[in-house]
Amino acid sequence: MAQKLFLLPGDGIGTEIMAEVEKIIAWLNSQGETEFEIDTGLAGGAAYDAHGVAVTEEDVQKALAADAVIFGAVGGPKWDSVPYEHRPEAALLRLRKELAVFANLRPAICYPALADASALKRELIEGLDILIVRELTGGVYFGEPKEITDLGNGQKRAIDTQVYETYEIDRIARVAFDLARTRGNKVHSADKKNVMKSGVLWDEVVRGVAKDYPDVTFEHILADNCAMQLVRNPRQFDVIVTDNLFGDILSDTAAMLTGSLGMLPSASLGAPDPATGKRKAFYEPVHGSAPDIAGKGIANPIAMIASFAMALRYSFGMVTLADRLENAIAAVLADGLRTGDIAQDNRRTVGTEEMGAAILKR
Amino acid sequence: MAQKLFLLPGDGIGTEIMAEVEKIIAWLNSQGETEFEIDTGLAGGAAYDAHGVAVTEEDVQKALAADAVIFGAVGGPKWDSVPYEHRPEAALLRLRKELAVFANLRPAICYPALADASALKRELIEGLDILIVRELTGGVYFGEPKEITDLGNGQKRAIDTQVYETYEIDRIARVAFDLARTRGNKVHSADKKNVMKSGVLWDEVVRGVAKDYPDVTFEHILADNCAMQLVRNPRQFDVIVTDNLFGDILSDTAAMLTGSLGMLPSASLGAPDPATGKRKAFYEPVHGSAPDIAGKGIANPIAMIASFAMALRYSFGMVTLADRLENAIAAVLADGLRTGDIAQDNRRTVGTEEMGAAILKR
Ligand SMILES: CC(C)[C@H](C(=O)O)[C@@H](O)C(=O)O
Ligand SMILES: CC(C)[C@H](C(=O)O)[C@@H](O)C(=O)O
Repeated sequence: MAQKLFLLPGDGIGTEIMAEVEKIIAWLNSQGETEFEIDTGLAGGAAYDAHGVAVTEEDVQKALAADAVIFGAVGGPKWDSVPYEHRPEAALLRLRKELAVFANLRPAICYPALADASALKRELIEGLDILIVRELTGGVYFGEPKEITDLGNGQKRAIDTQVYETYEIDRIARVAFDLARTRGNKVHSADKKNVMKSGVLWDEVVRGVAKDYPDVTFEHILADNCAMQLVRNPRQFDVIVTDNLFGDILSDTAAMLTGSLGMLPSASLGAPDPATGKRKAFYEPVHGSAPDIAGKGIANPIAMIASFAMALRYSFGMVTLADRLENAIAAVLADGLRTGDIAQDNRRTVGTEEMGAAILKR
Repeated sequence: MAQKLFLLPGDGIGTEIMAEVEKIIAWLNSQGETEFEIDTGLAGGAAYDAHGVAVTEEDVQKALAADAVIFGAVGGPKWDSVPYEHRPEAALLRLRKELAVFANLRPAICYPALADASALKRELIEGLDILIVRELTGGVYFGEPKEITDLGNGQKRAIDTQVYETYEIDRIARVAFDLARTRGNKVHSADKKNVMKSGVLWDEVVRGVAKDYPDVTFEHILADNCAMQLVRNPRQFDVIVTDNLFGDILSDTAAMLTGSLGMLPSASLGAPDPATGKRKAFYEPVHGSAPDIAGKGIANPIAMIASFAMALRYSFGMVTLADRLENAIAAVLADGLRTGDIAQDNRRTVGTEEMGAAILKR
């Protein structure tokens, strides 16, 4: 039976890097390796320009009906003054919420070929392999009230609400502990329980879950200390589970440490459907839409392709194919091919298409 | 007229490093350079053990009456299961709020003698000099509701409220722009306006303030990107102004970058009193109470002494004396003296007292 992929390239370099994924899908289908059925929609500024919203109702429905959504990136200065509810990021937030993909997996790995590209000393990040498990559909991103009130006299009051319920923390913690078992067997849970009540509950629930995983090492860490320790000694971490906002910041920090930002994919997964066991899933690169280099054909497609590899692995159980694709990426890097963002002396700098083609060839 | 200092050494290494500050004060007084009157109180676990609260009413009153409060550090595993409202950190939060010291200045400088101690490559952090201006009395730290509700069925809901009003953002932004004028003339304002309404208001108000400082370069940056950029290329920053929670994380990241965490002071200032022009002020090292090395006489007193130097500068206008003290710190480091946290080959590792004495001698 054909499997449905819904592609949302978005803005900026999103379309260019998605094109490389499309070529890979076409090739896989032509080889009879897969039977992907593809549909494509608009998201972010592209959707706003065409329809006046960050994502149309129709595209939300298509995303809900798909077996996996593959997302590029959204945003750019062109839409800086778009009304708040239609800003490009609204597409991302709406889709995450509608798909209920609460578990955002952000691997931060250091590709050996790129260890020197890190700001950190090589000996600190060589072999780095952290997985940030970020709660994605709760917290201050979605809590109500979320509003600005005019108080008169030139004064306004803005409110955002950080809210978590037990079940939300429980399910994300289980994802983290389950994944830790397939990796380094260690979970750090990061919060600010010393100042936030949501942190107190977060810690209470995660500690409860930890009891069900006696074989996994568990450590609590304050989010500010976690940010520090990521810089000081990142290899002490295996899996870090944290809330939506801390996850946003800590995963970006971790990604930047690796020196491989343009290379890092992410997967966002929902709960398994009780009937079919299938999870809604949303795959996107960690980097943004890079408006400064958009349209030049020089963007690095690796994070996008690696996100598709995560789709093969997590949504379709095509583990061998995912391995092959990931190995192809590592091999092309080892061959010395580089896009501009990771350019090095004595390595060949290529464009988006050539990088995509080289990976496909491998 | 004598000037009143209120010392709150707190827990862990707090008492040891404060002792070195006391020696410096005694010496300054004995030389007739200053006329400090000293009182000392308890904070954090020490106060809890003695009085069952994180800080007594009496000590809060003394802090309010003092010209400057010098604070060590609070917390430790001993008080991990103390009730939430009496946990050591509550002392810090209560004092910040009562003193209304809304402007937390956290310099992140890289001492040349210590550039190699950073996790970052030397060429990225040599000469680093960032000032983080963190809003300290608002945001999610203090917003109400802040509570955990039992929903039955084993479910609880935890809420924290991020709230900012125009005047709070306006005054902290002015502090940042005023300070930028005395430094590199550049301000970055970090928020998450793409997902938070408080970020939208934050940005609106800071942009308004920026118009009053046409000579200062202003740039908006998303908080997650700021965390990344701090790792990638920290020297692009001069002053970063941000809210309480982002400030907590970003200032810790910045501090860790320098490799000089045990060296970094902070000042928290209130609004000038309309009558006297005086600001309430609270000085504390950026590092914590380090329970693991407490009582061993090996803690680094430099951040504490540098915090006192900030007090001389900001609360008492004793600029020359502050310069002398800061130069003494740099000189002692250049002489090759190191405490354990910054130990290096071919440098002499000394204890808290010897480091304090060496600085005093200088
Ligand atoms: C674009 C933005 C809304 C988003 C977020 O804050 O979650 C991004 O930073 C991310 O991490 O995916
Ligand atoms: C101890 C804690 C309450 C405090 C904070 O979160 O503000 C600390 O991390 C700091 O940065 O001063």
